[in-house]
Amino acid sequence: MAVFERLTRLKSTSRFLRYTTSLCPAHPCTATARIQQRRVHGGGSETPSAAPPRRPFSQVTPADLDFFTRLLPGRTITDPDVLESSNVDWLKSVKGSSEVLLRPKTTEEVSQILRYCNEWNLAVSPQGGNTGLVGGSVPVFDEIILSTALMNQVLTFDSISGILTCQAGCVLENLSQYLEERDFIMPLDLGAKGSCHIGGNVSTNAGGLRLLRYGSLRGTVLGLEVVLADGRVLDCLSTLRKDNTGYDLKQLFIGSEGTLGVVTAVSILCPRKPKSVNVAFLGCSSFENLLETFQICRGMLGEILSAFEFLDASCMSLLEEHLKLTNPITESPFYIVIETAGSTPAHDEEKLHNFLDTVMASALVIDGTVATEETKIKALWSMRERVTEALRHDGYTYKYDVSLPVEKIYDLVTDMRKRLGYRAKSVVGYGHVGDGNLHLNITSPMKDPALLAAIEPYVYEWTSGCQGSVSAEHGLGLKKRNYIYYSKSPEAVTLMGDIKAMLDPKGILNPYKTLPDSVR
Amino acid sequence: MAVFERLTRLKSTSRFLRYTTSLCPAHPCTATARIQQRRVHGGGSETPSAAPPRRPFSQVTPADLDFFTRLLPGRTITDPDVLESSNVDWLKSVKGSSEVLLRPKTTEEVSQILRYCNEWNLAVSPQGGNTGLVGGSVPVFDEIILSTALMNQVLTFDSISGILTCQAGCVLENLSQYLEERDFIMPLDLGAKGSCHIGGNVSTNAGGLRLLRYGSLRGTVLGLEVVLADGRVLDCLSTLRKDNTGYDLKQLFIGSEGTLGVVTAVSILCPRKPKSVNVAFLGCSSFENLLETFQICRGMLGEILSAFEFLDASCMSLLEEHLKLTNPITESPFYIVIETAGSTPAHDEEKLHNFLDTVMASALVIDGTVATEETKIKALWSMRERVTEALRHDGYTYKYDVSLPVEKIYDLVTDMRKRLGYRAKSVVGYGHVGDGNLHLNITSPMKDPALLAAIEPYVYEWTSGCQGSVSAEHGLGLKKRNYIYYSKSPEAVTLMGDIKAMLDPKGILNPYKTLPDSVR
Repeated sequence: MAVFERLTRLKSTSRFLRYTTSLCPAHPCTATARIQQRRVHGGGSETPSAAPPRRPFSQVTPADLDFFTRLLPGRTITDPDVLESSNVDWLKSVKGSSEVLLRPKTTEEVSQILRYCNEWNLAVSPQGGNTGLVGGSVPVFDEIILSTALMNQVLTFDSISGILTCQAGCVLENLSQYLEERDFIMPLDLGAKGSCHIGGNVSTNAGGLRLLRYGSLRGTVLGLEVVLADGRVLDCLSTLRKDNTGYDLKQLFIGSEGTLGVVTAVSILCPRKPKSVNVAFLGCSSFENLLETFQICRGMLGEILSAFEFLDASCMSLLEEHLKLTNPITESPFYIVIETAGSTPAHDEEKLHNFLDTVMASALVIDGTVATEETKIKALWSMRERVTEALRHDGYTYKYDVSLPVEKIYDLVTDMRKRLGYRAKSVVGYGHVGDGNLHLNITSPMKDPALLAAIEPYVYEWTSGCQGSVSAEHGLGLKKRNYIYYSKSPEAVTLMGDIKAMLDPKGILNPYKTLPDSVR
Repeated sequence: MAVFERLTRLKSTSRFLRYTTSLCPAHPCTATARIQQRRVHGGGSETPSAAPPRRPFSQVTPADLDFFTRLLPGRTITDPDVLESSNVDWLKSVKGSSEVLLRPKTTEEVSQILRYCNEWNLAVSPQGGNTGLVGGSVPVFDEIILSTALMNQVLTFDSISGILTCQAGCVLENLSQYLEERDFIMPLDLGAKGSCHIGGNVSTNAGGLRLLRYGSLRGTVLGLEVVLADGRVLDCLSTLRKDNTGYDLKQLFIGSEGTLGVVTAVSILCPRKPKSVNVAFLGCSSFENLLETFQICRGMLGEILSAFEFLDASCMSLLEEHLKLTNPITESPFYIVIETAGSTPAHDEEKLHNFLDTVMASALVIDGTVATEETKIKALWSMRERVTEALRHDGYTYKYDVSLPVEKIYDLVTDMRKRLGYRAKSVVGYGHVGDGNLHLNITSPMKDPALLAAIEPYVYEWTSGCQGSVSAEHGLGLKKRNYIYYSKSPEAVTLMGDIKAMLDPKGILNPYKTLPDSVR
């Protein structure tokens, strides 16, 4: 609901990267695409990445609507106002023109929908909470939107093993609340938790704030139920920590952005709720010192370290200037947010105290403050979490989310600052040091093609030169699909295409996403 | 070397499940298979699972040997004595009749070998340390053995991120030593660490003793280099914690037992070496109390818990009777081995002390002892680790390795004991409570087909009825391939067959393994 409200509120003032299509009345149909591309104001990748021409999928006919309405009475939506919200992504950067939104409640309904769509060559755009940042969760043209919003039931929870099984449309925050009442937590946490669905999290292989501690979804997701393009239900909904009977098929659907199948249920291993949480906000005089602090931190905090995030002085200036936040410590070139989560408060505090003594005595850290109360913890976290908001106030923002070897994580910011000089208003770096994940953001008073040309493809080449990833945690979706070769070999991309062709030979599932235009 | 010596020593006295083949002189060739099956004495699955007829692969000709010798001078082995060791598995339960063992040093050599074999329809059996337990690492007929033994170089290690990259033939124990000198450890540990190769560990998705703490290889392996059946090199050797650019292809090769590609290099995320290790050996009066102890343990030891293993009173009797070990505590129906690993010795000891106070005050635990010194730690661990050895002295052993929902883990032992009654000599249960992984072992004074008929398929049906896995950590290999349907749906197995056909259309890679005979 939060997302819908936000989108509705902004609707009248925003401009979109819009793709519209001339209609064609019957099956089968080769529609000619009329692509009208307008530049977007908002976040996400700012690089033009026009959709390819509409592929020759069928258009939805009255007969199709009859079928869907019989299958999903009251849950086959054609109301333009409701469709408006589902056609546009959270960043308001991509907008499709779908005329049908389906809201199944069961796996069997999803199966019947896909069997029908595959038979009649109708393209489908699966949609969870629609909080993705790369245009992966909205139609590009007139694809049918298949929403998991009503598939929101917890199926089982085992309080001995900590294994939760639920439908794909459960909202992450609801699952977190369900678990916290039972003394467990979800192994992932995201800023979008109030809207995002667990099925979408799995389909994008979401990273988030707890990855450093609990690892990726590839380890914590124990089982999936998936409906394939032709309607077959693939039941891999295991609730076992160990199972070496054949190939681990569920991995195909983690992070494939709904292009290989629609995730309908998830089982996931959940950690115990920590009894003690502390947050430290520290200042360092150089990035080298920050990295050394990270190493000492891993040794001394060890098993209780749950986050190691950073922001640079430019981020702090933006927080102060645009959001009127007060720097809680002495001005420094770099700031660190460290979180600990453990089972024994006194032990955790002692570990943190000893660590801080060590890094301050050696002058690796020049100033710092620690919070143990929830309100102060939130205040310190906001210095890291609100950087994105501060950037919005600074101007037109070019945003990049890259993985790099941790020792090179800040070199890209330094290089970019030198390269762009006066042409950029701000060049800032922040992100997850513990995961080697940098958020590089560059602002300008207004949209600036010359500035963009100085950034791209340089930023991708730079990342590729370090064997980095051009999309650390957001996926490729529509916007970044053609940049895949900066991080993956041609042989790998070819094999991805083979897998797509094997599982979805007609290509009806989330077309124009993830794979580059050169691979269908 | 240890494995070779052991095998050579046992060679003259053992009998094998042997498959021999009539030779055919030229390419292409449809050899008729002559399968001579003799029952086996030794460990592993005791269920007859005869190999299917030899498939129509070519036989190795002098021209092939010329090619291999030119490519790998001095490393193309045809000496029957050396081949004898490589043709038989560690349990001495399966023996092939390969006449060629290849020892490449580089990925390019592996690529050339496979390109040639694929072109000439020659089957290949990839082999690491040959410590597998399901007949997955040896030829079944005359497949060429492709050994990773000389691919044993560490490529890079990053002491900031803890990411190690190495060739596939590195022995696990050597990697552990390399890392411990640098204050890190491998995220997996196995009894076979002195012989097993990391490439084999990845290919079988090895579990082992540290899974409870550090998770499975699906999370800790960050990258793989793999040579496909046709010789293409698939470079997915990422050293990034986060990378969401397209499908995660490396997952296809983790746990697929060399049937989809040959792993040639691995990058893996390694934890810091713990500064403090403690082991507790405890007694419980019931399995219900043991499970409740496990729950309390997860809450109170939390982040420092690194193992929670169990054995029953029957295991203890075998240890006392056959190995003359002394029970370190009061006789109990169940015993637990708990290991903690942390960064602060005083904290870890205090946590353990408080936990023990709680579980003993509530009478969940009736007796216990704790070790902090290395020799005493090893002595306590041996009560768990030497059960397999004790079973060998007890008679002919029927061995099962299953995953079950943790609350049902011991019901299978109880049920089986009732079902078999006087027909079995011993029915014992032990294993990894923390992972829901039970090792069920049943002994008899001698091989007993009536006893076997009472065990199977009952044990598989029982496991399947609980949505368990009939192979928790050992894989399917040759011996268990046809039991896959007890844990996987027909749709899933069909899709596995599609993947195999896509990646290895001629089926030359490790034939007769992993997939059931009904799927080629």
